[in-house]
Amino acid sequence: RIMRPDDANIAGNVHGGTILKMIEEAGAIISTRHCNSQAGEPCVAALARVERTDFLSPMCIGEVANVSAEITYTSRHSVEVQVNVMSENILTGAKKLTNKATLWYVPLSLKNVNKVLEVPPIQYTRKEQEEEGKKRYEEQKLDRLETKQRNGDVIFPIINPEPHTVGYSQSSLIHLVGPSDCTLLGFVHGGVTMKLMDEVAGIVAARHCKTNIVTASVDAINFHEKIKKGCVITISGRMTFTSNKSMEIEVFVDADPFVDEPRERYRAVSAFFTYVSLSKEGKPLPVPQLLTETEDEKRRFEEGKGRYLQTKAKRQAQMQQAAQ
Amino acid sequence: RIMRPDDANIAGNVHGGTILKMIEEAGAIISTRHCNSQAGEPCVAALARVERTDFLSPMCIGEVANVSAEITYTSRHSVEVQVNVMSENILTGAKKLTNKATLWYVPLSLKNVNKVLEVPPIQYTRKEQEEEGKKRYEEQKLDRLETKQRNGDVIFPIINPEPHTVGYSQSSLIHLVGPSDCTLLGFVHGGVTMKLMDEVAGIVAARHCKTNIVTASVDAINFHEKIKKGCVITISGRMTFTSNKSMEIEVFVDADPFVDEPRERYRAVSAFFTYVSLSKEGKPLPVPQLLTETEDEKRRFEEGKGRYLQTKAKRQAQMQQAAQ
Amino acid sequence: RIMRPDDANIAGNVHGGTILKMIEEAGAIISTRHCNSQAGEPCVAALARVERTDFLSPMCIGEVANVSAEITYTSRHSVEVQVNVMSENILTGAKKLTNKATLWYVPLSLKNVNKVLEVPPIQYTRKEQEEEGKKRYEEQKLDRLETKQRNGDVIFPIINPEPHTVGYSQSSLIHLVGPSDCTLLGFVHGGVTMKLMDEVAGIVAARHCKTNIVTASVDAINFHEKIKKGCVITISGRMTFTSNKSMEIEVFVDADPFVDEPRERYRAVSAFFTYVSLSKEGKPLPVPQLLTETEDEKRRFEEGKGRYLQTKAKRQAQMQQAAQ
Repeated sequence: RIMRPDDANIAGNVHGGTILKMIEEAGAIISTRHCNSQAGEPCVAALARVERTDFLSPMCIGEVANVSAEITYTSRHSVEVQVNVMSENILTGAKKLTNKATLWYVPLSLKNVNKVLEVPPIQYTRKEQEEEGKKRYEEQKLDRLETKQRNGDVIFPIINPEPHTVGYSQSSLIHLVGPSDCTLLGFVHGGVTMKLMDEVAGIVAARHCKTNIVTASVDAINFHEKIKKGCVITISGRMTFTSNKSMEIEVFVDADPFVDEPRERYRAVSAFFTYVSLSKEGKPLPVPQLLTETEDEKRRFEEGKGRYLQTKAKRQAQMQQAAQ
Repeated sequence: RIMRPDDANIAGNVHGGTILKMIEEAGAIISTRHCNSQAGEPCVAALARVERTDFLSPMCIGEVANVSAEITYTSRHSVEVQVNVMSENILTGAKKLTNKATLWYVPLSLKNVNKVLEVPPIQYTRKEQEEEGKKRYEEQKLDRLETKQRNGDVIFPIINPEPHTVGYSQSSLIHLVGPSDCTLLGFVHGGVTMKLMDEVAGIVAARHCKTNIVTASVDAINFHEKIKKGCVITISGRMTFTSNKSMEIEVFVDADPFVDEPRERYRAVSAFFTYVSLSKEGKPLPVPQLLTETEDEKRRFEEGKGRYLQTKAKRQAQMQQAAQ
Repeated sequence: RIMRPDDANIAGNVHGGTILKMIEEAGAIISTRHCNSQAGEPCVAALARVERTDFLSPMCIGEVANVSAEITYTSRHSVEVQVNVMSENILTGAKKLTNKATLWYVPLSLKNVNKVLEVPPIQYTRKEQEEEGKKRYEEQKLDRLETKQRNGDVIFPIINPEPHTVGYSQSSLIHLVGPSDCTLLGFVHGGVTMKLMDEVAGIVAARHCKTNIVTASVDAINFHEKIKKGCVITISGRMTFTSNKSMEIEVFVDADPFVDEPRERYRAVSAFFTYVSLSKEGKPLPVPQLLTETEDEKRRFEEGKGRYLQTKAKRQAQMQQAAQ
């Protein structure tokens, strides 16, 4: 669809969250269609996980986003979908790859939302495709288990924080889940959650560096718990790490089933977003270093540095491979 | 309502689709109210057809759209509504007629969505009004039958198309029908469908001529089949004809009831949109000629030329009548 | 959340209605959560009244709105919520208080929408807080009773009105209540209604003075009747009074339960909005005087003058108190 002023920040760059929402909608459509392709219990595919995503080039207002999706692997109860986003300037005809994302869905029965159905297997053109898919499936399963056990942290407000400290830029946003945010099953679309997460991360990044900022990448996001219509969700973000030219922001989503539910508030999703700061000409700017104060903040900074160096190393390895 | 940045293209002209959506909402309200005006089974009016509509003058951001609707004919099972749209610049007070549209609705029972109810008759001030209305009713009924039989064509992607060919500008858009797109009966509002159709047609036109484009007119649109909440709809557009200063684009809407439905994908709506290309000063620009390659494309071009010449002749006849 | 182009008028000032909608959402969340904090029948808090609200400083696109809410009093069946809105320019870090609003909610049972439940009492830190709250409670109760009896006026269209007369700027807007406008109970959010009221009042003000206008304050609004999903609401506004630099606009909301309901159209809400006219530099401009023609218009002008002088006197008293 055509990018509109409402999809973009003041500098005309389309929010990463808008793109994440489109990607998820495409993934949900193709996997729901696949899971209903054989006679049997009707179902809706629910987002379980998004693999790490890089935003390769910014998209601008007036450009058309072309989203294409393909099922690349099926396990017994899950579907892997690969989504590509191309941006096209329809006046010049120029096209660029904006995003490549991998998403995992599970089919939930339309009659009983807690029942996970079986996925019809796909045909592979090459034997290796199935093996590679199985490897990706095992890896993401492991990672999901790990993050499920990670302890839920809470962000408290700070009084009179100093500039460039963690407390200075931390932000949160509350959203009441309405009918237009939900699937046929009455649960929030994964894409809606990701859009709100990107919005909070963007506010944190802009507060820290006070310039025009854009989403550079999103780490793998696991959706452990469904969020029901009528919940209040609190999306909180805090900066964890800065390199010379990037900022890492941790975002939590907590759901509060405050009506008609005997449940406590629970952590539904958490993820790391990476932002870069851009000049008016669109060139990357240096980022002010994050001032860490508490032991926890220093620990998180070191962990963020670890993720940063790991990603950097992986990218260099890929570039060397590509150059060979 | 006031036109907002989100309703308009980059040059500040309001999308034809936004106006079509307002027109349909007004028509749905007045005809639903009329059909419920007498004690009996409650119902919701569903859009069956929109007659050919001309966009007489472009509307701009910040202008107020005044929509007025009137019931002009009732048959046993259908209502004809005339809707006028005036644009008003509230700062200068200037008003212009933007659109005149004629819509046909049928009342569907709220309890049983497949049951068409009877329409309470309206009072005519002059005998001729009823006769003229009956003539319009018979004409549209015939046209609906004809288009229902027209064979459903499919648009395939083209690899590396040449500029100005049909394949170069053809476009499609996928939309998951959510609750906010639907009426009380759980079916897509006709206006929502028309807005998406205009969006696709606009992308086709912009890809072809790479300038600022606006909707000039929409041919009669027949809504043969309802589209249910939870469907995926694919809206596809391809250019069929160009004159010196206008482009004709054919748009299809296919619905895919992919969950909880034993039905195949079906063609729900099709229509022709006419666009013109405008310079920055708002003057009409010449349009590059469409390059037709296959026999089908040549045939569709000739058919489009027929429609174009017919409309032109009709307009000249009307102007001569007005001049007498 | 970040203010977007769609939230603002052409001059970049955020519509008062967008802010009212955010305030009401925050109030609905905190009071629903409070009313469900003890075991018992689940409920949703419905807006009963908003106290007079002043817009202290305009908010601009790109600023972040920080909304905070606190429960300040509970009676047996109602909750008083105080909401503050701060605007923050995240690039400069500058913050300003934009709004202070007081809202009253009543908890309605999720199982039986006509049953008002009991509110769990809150703890007061000082004895006087409870007494002051009780006084506010009694005052608003009295005012609600009075306005309930005020006779419902109707606005008729005027043919060829003169500039600056009441008929010249009066406006109305029709809206079909869709699922995304509604709470879990299927009734329109109070905030949605207020946003539409502000939109109509803004059109009336702009038609009268033909400049950029902003909401300066909203008088107390009482929500006497719920508005159900599927209703058509007509929001009408007319100017009642002008001072040198402000305009008072009366706004009515009429609901028309046109499907599946044996009810007549009824007046759901009415309120007075005050607007000021701003130059391009954001300075207040003189407002053309309202020309009153009928006896009713002259009476309403005098009543508006009374409200204007009363508010002015109250504000001066507060400023003197503050200066002491």
